[in-house]
Amino acid sequence: MIRAAIQGGTGYTALELLRILLRHPGVEVTAVTSRSETGLVSRVHPSLAGRLNLVFSNPTPDELAGQADVCFCCLPHVASMEAIPSLLAAGLRVIDLSADYRLTDPVVYETWYGHVHTDPTRLGATVYGLPEIYGDRIASQNLIANPGCYTSTSILALAPLLKAGLVRPKGIIIDAKSGVSGAGRSPKVEMLYSECNESFSAYAVGTHRHTPEIEQVLSDVCGEQVDVIFTPHLTPMDRGIFATIYAVPAREVKQAELLETMRQFYAGKPFVHVVEHLPKTKDVSGTNFCHLTARVVKDRVMVLAVLDNLIKGASGVAVQNFNLMYDFDETTGLV
Amino acid sequence: MIRAAIQGGTGYTALELLRILLRHPGVEVTAVTSRSETGLVSRVHPSLAGRLNLVFSNPTPDELAGQADVCFCCLPHVASMEAIPSLLAAGLRVIDLSADYRLTDPVVYETWYGHVHTDPTRLGATVYGLPEIYGDRIASQNLIANPGCYTSTSILALAPLLKAGLVRPKGIIIDAKSGVSGAGRSPKVEMLYSECNESFSAYAVGTHRHTPEIEQVLSDVCGEQVDVIFTPHLTPMDRGIFATIYAVPAREVKQAELLETMRQFYAGKPFVHVVEHLPKTKDVSGTNFCHLTARVVKDRVMVLAVLDNLIKGASGVAVQNFNLMYDFDETTGLV
Amino acid sequence: MIRAAIQGGTGYTALELLRILLRHPGVEVTAVTSRSETGLVSRVHPSLAGRLNLVFSNPTPDELAGQADVCFCCLPHVASMEAIPSLLAAGLRVIDLSADYRLTDPVVYETWYGHVHTDPTRLGATVYGLPEIYGDRIASQNLIANPGCYTSTSILALAPLLKAGLVRPKGIIIDAKSGVSGAGRSPKVEMLYSECNESFSAYAVGTHRHTPEIEQVLSDVCGEQVDVIFTPHLTPMDRGIFATIYAVPAREVKQAELLETMRQFYAGKPFVHVVEHLPKTKDVSGTNFCHLTARVVKDRVMVLAVLDNLIKGASGVAVQNFNLMYDFDETTGLV
Amino acid sequence: MIRAAIQGGTGYTALELLRILLRHPGVEVTAVTSRSETGLVSRVHPSLAGRLNLVFSNPTPDELAGQADVCFCCLPHVASMEAIPSLLAAGLRVIDLSADYRLTDPVVYETWYGHVHTDPTRLGATVYGLPEIYGDRIASQNLIANPGCYTSTSILALAPLLKAGLVRPKGIIIDAKSGVSGAGRSPKVEMLYSECNESFSAYAVGTHRHTPEIEQVLSDVCGEQVDVIFTPHLTPMDRGIFATIYAVPAREVKQAELLETMRQFYAGKPFVHVVEHLPKTKDVSGTNFCHLTARVVKDRVMVLAVLDNLIKGASGVAVQNFNLMYDFDETTGLV
Repeated sequence: MIRAAIQGGTGYTALELLRILLRHPGVEVTAVTSRSETGLVSRVHPSLAGRLNLVFSNPTPDELAGQADVCFCCLPHVASMEAIPSLLAAGLRVIDLSADYRLTDPVVYETWYGHVHTDPTRLGATVYGLPEIYGDRIASQNLIANPGCYTSTSILALAPLLKAGLVRPKGIIIDAKSGVSGAGRSPKVEMLYSECNESFSAYAVGTHRHTPEIEQVLSDVCGEQVDVIFTPHLTPMDRGIFATIYAVPAREVKQAELLETMRQFYAGKPFVHVVEHLPKTKDVSGTNFCHLTARVVKDRVMVLAVLDNLIKGASGVAVQNFNLMYDFDETTGLV
Repeated sequence: MIRAAIQGGTGYTALELLRILLRHPGVEVTAVTSRSETGLVSRVHPSLAGRLNLVFSNPTPDELAGQADVCFCCLPHVASMEAIPSLLAAGLRVIDLSADYRLTDPVVYETWYGHVHTDPTRLGATVYGLPEIYGDRIASQNLIANPGCYTSTSILALAPLLKAGLVRPKGIIIDAKSGVSGAGRSPKVEMLYSECNESFSAYAVGTHRHTPEIEQVLSDVCGEQVDVIFTPHLTPMDRGIFATIYAVPAREVKQAELLETMRQFYAGKPFVHVVEHLPKTKDVSGTNFCHLTARVVKDRVMVLAVLDNLIKGASGVAVQNFNLMYDFDETTGLV
Repeated sequence: MIRAAIQGGTGYTALELLRILLRHPGVEVTAVTSRSETGLVSRVHPSLAGRLNLVFSNPTPDELAGQADVCFCCLPHVASMEAIPSLLAAGLRVIDLSADYRLTDPVVYETWYGHVHTDPTRLGATVYGLPEIYGDRIASQNLIANPGCYTSTSILALAPLLKAGLVRPKGIIIDAKSGVSGAGRSPKVEMLYSECNESFSAYAVGTHRHTPEIEQVLSDVCGEQVDVIFTPHLTPMDRGIFATIYAVPAREVKQAELLETMRQFYAGKPFVHVVEHLPKTKDVSGTNFCHLTARVVKDRVMVLAVLDNLIKGASGVAVQNFNLMYDFDETTGLV
Repeated sequence: MIRAAIQGGTGYTALELLRILLRHPGVEVTAVTSRSETGLVSRVHPSLAGRLNLVFSNPTPDELAGQADVCFCCLPHVASMEAIPSLLAAGLRVIDLSADYRLTDPVVYETWYGHVHTDPTRLGATVYGLPEIYGDRIASQNLIANPGCYTSTSILALAPLLKAGLVRPKGIIIDAKSGVSGAGRSPKVEMLYSECNESFSAYAVGTHRHTPEIEQVLSDVCGEQVDVIFTPHLTPMDRGIFATIYAVPAREVKQAELLETMRQFYAGKPFVHVVEHLPKTKDVSGTNFCHLTARVVKDRVMVLAVLDNLIKGASGVAVQNFNLMYDFDETTGLV
């Protein structure tokens, strides 16, 4: 039984992790930390009432290492890179759900996040935890940078076609739509029900922090500098990301070849399904699956991708990484 | 042209008032006040972009009285009773959308709101601004206590049957369901989209402040002490209140007599419609109408009532009161 | 490995069953039948893409008995009682999700469903599949009448207090609110998104078919004739039932005693949790749990109960019954 | 007082027309027709209870011409072109909300709609009723082709920049998102609440019928053949269209110049507002307004546009056309 801790346990990704880990046969959750909350975890997360008797704790790294083998770190960025070196030093393996270890270049980090990276030597050395791309390198790691939700959607959609040279690395437009849970659990006027409901909006146009993350991984996949315009939108629903992607074909190509290329890329990958029909976010809601399809429309290749932002886009893929790190079947607890 | 000011202009009732007043042919909105916001009102309320060039101001009562004839006061309770005496003294007529002048007894106010009332002499003397009940007393007033949303729904549903002696004043159960906009625009975790969406909940069970307001007005209507159990619920939708009411019949009664009694009570009242079918909140969404019906089920009389909490339950009825105060047709700006 | 068939596989309860059974370690789904659909089940239920390779079939009872040990019957009422005798005769054990075998009296069935019951001898002899009430009788059965969603909510809420004699069996009011998925997948104008969204409504006031089912089981529990007024409402959300229940206390009683009575009743029952706070439907959404609490308000005892209508209210409890019938742990596949 | 009829009065555009026309001071609605419904119009549209006493009728064109001056035709395509020649012959002026008279070329009509056009001589001669583009030609017409909802959004967003030569007519991508009411009121499984809610999807990728309509009008505006990729999506909300548009700049251009060009184009147009902030569909929900903004992101010009599909995208613009045809102020009944 692997003992798991959750660092920063009050938000939605922590709740989703707890839901998954509670049904994982090889895991015991031994600690859920918080600096602001005390008392029963199920008081903050009433869906766990009667199922989890832990109270929030605020242990030192060494205390935490005495209680757990692995730590899922659900702190916000900056707080993550402040906490993780000590967790690692105390002997914990860490799966970091923040953005702090995803980018490889501290200058890029500083540009997009507005903070000097305080643990720069680990940046280039940390594996990006998208198992469909870097699955063979995850098992041996002590620190995994769990990917962003928009990023996973975009990478899973484009990697096969870029790698096969079927679309050009320049001129890619990713028009992405997310459910509101991606915005987290902090009280902000613009995230109130009465603001978001019955409203569709764009935000961070041209400036969203997942842009360099998408470009970095896709460039690594295809060996050329990939350049994307990424536009996130907020949709009145709890969960789900839908990406509508427009790319320039590198040569004449038909839908069948696109789908076949994607199918081959994901052969043996249990969580990505290439489908013929147009997918909907509801098809994958509450699951760790990603559904993809492709079309040729006029002079563009279109890829349409869906996943659940809290699961395949955050906590589910974190457990998928955990499974690889501890030699469980990749799907344990996730289907 | 009557000059109207809105005191406390950043919330949803203020926005709704502005929408209605902008199409009222006899009103010019001359001031929108805020202590926290400055700059264009349409920056906070982008739906008014291009339609309202006012900036938020923070005038003294005398300055405001120089700019306006009437003030719609959208401050929260306590703040309202602190502001209104000065507004009245400066010569403004006031329609108060808060709860501060609705109850007639300062002891009851203190019990339910936890504050000593600082303007107690006006309590018993202020008209409760529900035009279907007190319409003949509104025209001459300088201060109107605009009713609460749950209260209006409950009173409009029960007044005809209580007045006619068809149901008993004791043992009434009001099971009410509201859209989320009733909770206002303050950032609270429990009002986040991701908390409210896809969730139905009860709150303030047995303790909601509209309870004494309902009992006070209905007791006045029927001349006996009315006693209700009032249970509010939160429904994942923007607007609308649905009240399902269970009352004990005072004698054997059939549905036809109930409906006829209600129809006669509201004869000539333009905003209350007694219907045969079961109403839905969507039937009255965005309007100042209230739809009512009644049924006999086993040993109970049931009344079902719907209205839009922001309009007939707040800003629409405020304009209805304004129309009566300034001798406009009661429906001006409201249909 | 138990081989399971789903009879009538195109609706929401069938989909939910498939989702649960696909992660049940002791079940293989061997057939999904339909009279209207052919081809891959995952074409109708795209959320199963890549996870279930079955095609819809339309076998005879004997063919089905050759393929499966147990049949989850998801046919509508009437169709169910026409199919089930042959399924049983062919040797299948059957869990019927329709209403056809829930009532014990064929006259009551005919009154509420408008059809003569064609298999009346099985009516009184079929166990009502609510494991928290009849759990000790389920293991040995070949036919289980899976309960209705409103019914389960109401019974779980009231059974402990009625059995303990804390509330009276007369004068009970159940004001229930359901998500829209309870209405099924047939195309009807009134179930269109644009009709239901942003709307709250009541339906079948005084006439809903779950009324006699609630009364029958609760009467059996407490040994007296229970009489309820049951009012169902439609809430703009996918899933969840919320029941607000008003009952007359049989003697003076406090909240603590109510909660303690409920806790003792459900001691050792893994899926019912008695909570102190006011529950929300979202707390149990996507799960087989039911959360309950109680309050004393004026002269009434109130019970508030939530569950997921498609899971604890339909397909989850069906698998719970299956687990009892095949000697699996009651929670297998359900947590 | 102009007498108006609504042909085909059971759908959402008809309801929205009725709501607007009931508050228009210069209109009396004298007939609402239906071939399928009889009885009170307010029985089908309960939001009109107590406000409209008309019953559905099924008059001949001559009978209708005796009752009305103008007919708003809300029939589906094909039915529209079968009815309209007789309505015009009978002396009615017609505002057609279907697609039948929007395209100028009968071959294009047949290609996209799969029907031979039966009134081809009127095709090239009918004015496209988008007042911001063709406002000076509307007053004198007897037949107006009211625009499609996606089309209006796309044209209003792109016309100023194409006309000014700031973006190229080729390579335009319109990624559009619509509320569900655009799908109409026919009962279809895929439009059920339980299918659409909590789900985001694309449909008609590369094949939506508004594509040639957008290209035709924009080509007319800029004098060059415009070519667009148009992708519609379904969003879980009642109303609103959001268009995210990517165009190739014709020369280096900054955001300020884009906004200024758009502002000048819409100077004096009361319903189109160019804003600095990113608009949301809720900003214009329930109104006849369109909000637009522009951005420069990498090598693309982006335009973001919102309007209410049932009002500015259908029934509101129909009344705007009516106002121009009958010399009312363009905003009468619409603000």
